[in-house]
Amino acid sequence: MHLPFQLTVLGSSSAMPTSSRYPTAQVLNVLGRFFLIDCGEGTQHQIRKLRVGFSKLNHILISHLHGDHFFGLIGYLSTQILLGRTSDLYIYAHSELQRYIQFQLEFLGIREMDYKLVFHPLNFRKEQLIYEDEKVSITSFPLKHRIQCCGFFFKEKEREANIKKGQIKKYDIPIKKIKNIKKGADFVTENGEIIKNAKLVTPPPKPRSFAFCSDTIYSESFIETIKDVDLLYHEATFAEIDKKLAKDTFHSTGKEAAQVAKLANAKKLLIGHFSARYKKPQLILDEAREIFKETYAAEDGETYTVEIE
Amino acid sequence: MHLPFQLTVLGSSSAMPTSSRYPTAQVLNVLGRFFLIDCGEGTQHQIRKLRVGFSKLNHILISHLHGDHFFGLIGYLSTQILLGRTSDLYIYAHSELQRYIQFQLEFLGIREMDYKLVFHPLNFRKEQLIYEDEKVSITSFPLKHRIQCCGFFFKEKEREANIKKGQIKKYDIPIKKIKNIKKGADFVTENGEIIKNAKLVTPPPKPRSFAFCSDTIYSESFIETIKDVDLLYHEATFAEIDKKLAKDTFHSTGKEAAQVAKLANAKKLLIGHFSARYKKPQLILDEAREIFKETYAAEDGETYTVEIE
Repeated sequence: MHLPFQLTVLGSSSAMPTSSRYPTAQVLNVLGRFFLIDCGEGTQHQIRKLRVGFSKLNHILISHLHGDHFFGLIGYLSTQILLGRTSDLYIYAHSELQRYIQFQLEFLGIREMDYKLVFHPLNFRKEQLIYEDEKVSITSFPLKHRIQCCGFFFKEKEREANIKKGQIKKYDIPIKKIKNIKKGADFVTENGEIIKNAKLVTPPPKPRSFAFCSDTIYSESFIETIKDVDLLYHEATFAEIDKKLAKDTFHSTGKEAAQVAKLANAKKLLIGHFSARYKKPQLILDEAREIFKETYAAEDGETYTVEIE
Repeated sequence: MHLPFQLTVLGSSSAMPTSSRYPTAQVLNVLGRFFLIDCGEGTQHQIRKLRVGFSKLNHILISHLHGDHFFGLIGYLSTQILLGRTSDLYIYAHSELQRYIQFQLEFLGIREMDYKLVFHPLNFRKEQLIYEDEKVSITSFPLKHRIQCCGFFFKEKEREANIKKGQIKKYDIPIKKIKNIKKGADFVTENGEIIKNAKLVTPPPKPRSFAFCSDTIYSESFIETIKDVDLLYHEATFAEIDKKLAKDTFHSTGKEAAQVAKLANAKKLLIGHFSARYKKPQLILDEAREIFKETYAAEDGETYTVEIE
C-alpha cells in the first residue's frame, strides 16, 4: 500500500535568492492531497521542473507577507487560468493578501476566472484548525517575526486498526462485523465466546506529522503544538557567528532551530531559509547537529519522506 | 579593443513557463551599458545564475503589461533594496506600471528606499527616442498586440574614424589636429600640401543595432524603424499549423517573424516566446528558415554577439 507523506522543497533561500536556491516554497503530499506552503518567486517553475503537478494542488498556505514568501503567487494564479483550471483554489493567508491579489487581477484586466479563489484568513494571535478532512488536519500557530507570521502543523488522522486475515477465517467473522472490530470492538462467537479486540487486529500505524516554522526568532511558544512531530522544518537563516543579526531581524540560527526540535521531541529536523551570505549551509548544519543529531539541510528539489512506522 | 554588443536571453517562453524556459527577459550589453528588456518571473534568478550582475543594470524596459513580461519586477526591485543599491534605476514602461509598483511597495510597507526609481512612460502611438548617451540610443515603437505594446530599437552612435598611425608620422601631424581629422577634416602640411582625409583615416565600423519585437501580430508598420538591423529579436509564438490562433491572440508565427526580418533586411533573426504547446521550437525554426535563412531559436542562458564589421 502506497501511503505517501512527503515534503518536496521547491525553494530554500532566504529573501535574497542565490544561483542555486529559490525563495521559500514547499509542497507536502499527504496521501495524495497536495499542499503548497509559501510561494516565493519561481514556485511555478519549480513545480513544473519537479513534475509536482498543478492540478492536484488545491490548497496554498502563505505563512506571512514578506515578498520572498508570496511573490510567486500571482504568476501561479495566472498560469492556472491559462491551464484552464476550473476547481476551487483555497488560500490560507493574512486577510490582506486577498486585497493584494484582487488589485493585481484587476490591474491585469482579469474580471472573471473559470476557477474560484477561496481565501481563509489566518489568526496570528492563537492556534487555529484551518483545514480538516477524513485523512489530515492542519493547524496554524503564531510564530514570532517582524510582521505577523504563522507556522503550520499537518497531522494525519488516526487510522483504523488492521484486522488479521487469519482471525476472520478462524472465528468465521461476518463481513458486517469487521467495521466495528477495526474501530476497537471485541467479537462474540456463535457459542458466546468473547474474542478480545487485541487478538483480532494489529494496531494502526502512528499518524505522521509535519510542522513548518518559517520565519521566526527563537521561540518556545509553539513547542506543545508540534510535540512529537515526525518532520520539523524550522528556518535557520544564520550561523551562530551572526546570532545578533538573527535576533535583530527576528530570525533563527541553526542551533536555535535544533533546540526547538529537541524540546519538541521531533524525529527529524529540516533546516532552510539560509542567508545568501553563506556559500553553503554546512556551518549552520554542523552547529545544529551539535544539539540535534537528526538535522538535515534543505536542498531545492529534494523530497523528504516520512515513513509509516 | 573589447567593444561588446551582446544579447543574453534570460527567458524565451510565452505566457506559460516550461521546465526549461523562463518567461520573457533579455539583457543587452552595449559597450558595458546593460539594459534589461522585459522582466518575467524568475528574471532575478537568471541574472544571478548567468552572472550578469545587478549593479551594472540601470535601465529596465518593459514592452507591455502582460504578466509574463513584468511579474519578476517586484522581486527584482526588492532584491535591489537588500543589495543596498543607491544608484537610480530607470524604468521605461506603460505609465500604469508606476501605479502597480507603488501599490506593491506600499503593501510591503516600504516607504523609503536608498535608490530612486525613475519612471519613463512609453508612447504607444508613435516612435519615440527614449534613451540617448554618447554611445547608444534607444527608440521605442508601437507593436500590434491585444494591449498596448512597444518594441525597442537599440543603435550604437556613429564612431569617429581611426587615424592611421603611419600617416601621423609621415606628415608630422600635431596632436591637436588629430581630433578634427578623425571627424573628417583634411590636413594641410607646413608647405601647404593638402592631404585628403580619406588618405589619413580608416573609416569607422558601422554602428551595430538590435531590435526587440515582442509581442505582436504580423505587422510591417515598424519595418522602416528597424531597417538594416544587425540582430532582430521577433516573437514567434506559434507554428504555421496554429496560424489562426496566432492571429486570434495577436501573436506571430515563425514564418511571419522571418518575413519581417526579410523586409527589414536584418542580418540575423532570433525568434522566441515559444508556446508551451510545442515541446521544441524546431518546427517554428524550420518554417522561419524557409523565408529567412539566418534565423536562430532563442535558448535561455545563451548569449548572441553582434561583431564589429
